[in-house]
Amino acid sequence: MPDVALPFGRDEYAARLNKVRLAMDAAGIEVLVVTDPSNMAWLTGYDGWSFYVHQAVIVTHDDVPRWWGRLMDGFGAHRTAYIPESHIHTYSDDYVQSTERHAMDHLSMVFDELGLKSRRIGVEMENYYFTAAAYECLKRNLPNAEFIDATSLVNWQRTIKSPTEIEYMRRAAQIVEKMHARVLDKVEPGIRKNDLVAEIYDQGIRGTEEFGGDYPAIVPLTPTGLDATAAHLTWNDKPMESGAGTFFELAGCYRRYHAPLCRTIYLGDPPRDMIEAERAVVEGLEEGLDVARAGNRACDVAMAFHGALKRAGIHREGRCGYPVGLSYPPDWGERTISFRESDQSVLKPGMTFHFMPGLWAKTWGLEITETILIRDDGAAECLAHYPRKLFIKR
Amino acid sequence: MPDVALPFGRDEYAARLNKVRLAMDAAGIEVLVVTDPSNMAWLTGYDGWSFYVHQAVIVTHDDVPRWWGRLMDGFGAHRTAYIPESHIHTYSDDYVQSTERHAMDHLSMVFDELGLKSRRIGVEMENYYFTAAAYECLKRNLPNAEFIDATSLVNWQRTIKSPTEIEYMRRAAQIVEKMHARVLDKVEPGIRKNDLVAEIYDQGIRGTEEFGGDYPAIVPLTPTGLDATAAHLTWNDKPMESGAGTFFELAGCYRRYHAPLCRTIYLGDPPRDMIEAERAVVEGLEEGLDVARAGNRACDVAMAFHGALKRAGIHREGRCGYPVGLSYPPDWGERTISFRESDQSVLKPGMTFHFMPGLWAKTWGLEITETILIRDDGAAECLAHYPRKLFIKR
Repeated sequence: MPDVALPFGRDEYAARLNKVRLAMDAAGIEVLVVTDPSNMAWLTGYDGWSFYVHQAVIVTHDDVPRWWGRLMDGFGAHRTAYIPESHIHTYSDDYVQSTERHAMDHLSMVFDELGLKSRRIGVEMENYYFTAAAYECLKRNLPNAEFIDATSLVNWQRTIKSPTEIEYMRRAAQIVEKMHARVLDKVEPGIRKNDLVAEIYDQGIRGTEEFGGDYPAIVPLTPTGLDATAAHLTWNDKPMESGAGTFFELAGCYRRYHAPLCRTIYLGDPPRDMIEAERAVVEGLEEGLDVARAGNRACDVAMAFHGALKRAGIHREGRCGYPVGLSYPPDWGERTISFRESDQSVLKPGMTFHFMPGLWAKTWGLEITETILIRDDGAAECLAHYPRKLFIKR
Repeated sequence: MPDVALPFGRDEYAARLNKVRLAMDAAGIEVLVVTDPSNMAWLTGYDGWSFYVHQAVIVTHDDVPRWWGRLMDGFGAHRTAYIPESHIHTYSDDYVQSTERHAMDHLSMVFDELGLKSRRIGVEMENYYFTAAAYECLKRNLPNAEFIDATSLVNWQRTIKSPTEIEYMRRAAQIVEKMHARVLDKVEPGIRKNDLVAEIYDQGIRGTEEFGGDYPAIVPLTPTGLDATAAHLTWNDKPMESGAGTFFELAGCYRRYHAPLCRTIYLGDPPRDMIEAERAVVEGLEEGLDVARAGNRACDVAMAFHGALKRAGIHREGRCGYPVGLSYPPDWGERTISFRESDQSVLKPGMTFHFMPGLWAKTWGLEITETILIRDDGAAECLAHYPRKLFIKR
């Protein structure tokens, strides 16, 4: 084995692999092609910004996982994953963004060499890093294989966090507390939005004196006023003005583990309907946290939250939470459970969610959110400790 | 039309649309589904971190482009794109990361309403934001449509930059100069790598006094020593040590336009083979720049560069450059032309490339690169002005 400083012990990786194999077995999958970089990292430790070219971890029932990707990134696998050199398969640079050949042509040859070309192969059909062309190429090259949709198969194994994972998320939560404190300290009329975002980045990457920050899978979302009626706008270089609210959708990140937290700051006097919404959202959060208990369901949280909003005369649709943990861009969610009224998933101890009841009204946006941990008993625990309110700065 | 502060004039968007329609015509495409967020932004101005859910711009030959995506992001389209409200189509939140329905089910219904379901439909088969499942879903719902691979169709129209685009890239280049100057100022034995990266982010987002920075499509790649033998590792929170080199693969970004620039800094005395490689790389860059002229081909640049390396006894494979401009994560390249010995693409005035001859040896990595502009005549122009060398700090 190469000498690699893995973020988790080998036992933990073995336990993860075991869970994935059980899920493969249940789905009738003999060979799993893991292309989601979060799943690749969770299974093997592999960490690099190489997911813009094709790469995968290959899992079977009876062999050490294999890493497959671009030649130059094979060295990265060697430096960051526990995979032995014999199990690192790489393709040359002429497969990269070529119009003549597809990287999956190379993977097909690897499957042929390994005697895997006629197996039941699981692929992550709904993933950023498994394109339509990749699938067509594999099907063309491996006509005797049977392809099985393995979307989220690994993601589902990630929902319950280990003690070390929770520790990493607590660190991320400490970082995001400091990011919000920095925003509150620096924001004022006249400061350019980008200069404020520079402060956010500085704090987020600096982290604490004990440990440093990693890049979150989503950049700071910081829209002001009417722009905050849309959920996903970033920033510009205009000065901040009085008489408008800005939400700060940020995450602290430690070794790729995320703790998102959103707060909203109004410069000046917020309109009455925003103040009323703040009260309803905070009540809804409290009521949602109280039912976010092991044994209850995802929908219970959504119904509790939406119930509090309804009492205040606010109609809201859409999900209000999703699991978080290890992630790579473009999303810090795990894409399994959703806090929505139709989701019957049962909450279990060790699950972690971004309880994210953003409210986007006609003339403003309000985001007050928490990253939460489902406990063995009692209400959910908030990983970050930061005042749960609409901040007003005059 | 909504009141939107577009980054380019309406004439420029009209010219872009016209170019795309000509390319659609040549490919026999009646309806183009543009899912690449860079292409969506280039065509319409749309700018938001919403690409982690399905969205698209729909282009036909006889109608204003349509924006399609998630309800909450429709407001973002309203705020950032020139698309009229009548042409913004949105799906409800229960399509988001659902196991019961796919967002492309909704797009299929839109196609039905618009009378487009039996057309020749172009889709970007090889793109992060067009999954295998998305394609299967469209094919299932629109059995009478003919699907045509439109991978990079729009990207190819983006290769030659307009004067305003070049101006944006010059601003990005000014930013990246300042980022490298900050690194050189702050790097020293003992500083934690993440604290150095915090400085990089701070400078990159702060930009200059005249204009602010945007987020680059790739985070800072900053590996040290043996980690620098791999191309795409990010950072950790360990203190920098003497006796190792670190490359800094960074880009300045202005309104989503990128100017990447890489430099390498050695703390202490670099090994002799690294010094020799520096000389060869700098010579190769100079020779490559000299042949990067309008009328020459992409392969001429690669051959010139590799020729200089060969004279120094260094064998290098792989591409050494790619076009850059407008981009969203996970890649700041445009994925069309490559500086490689097999690429016959003819260089034209206004094209912009990251001339990127990274060298990853057995015990170190060396990156000295330039973002270049192909001129009407003469050798290529480097957009950033920063010493082209291996920096040594003792």
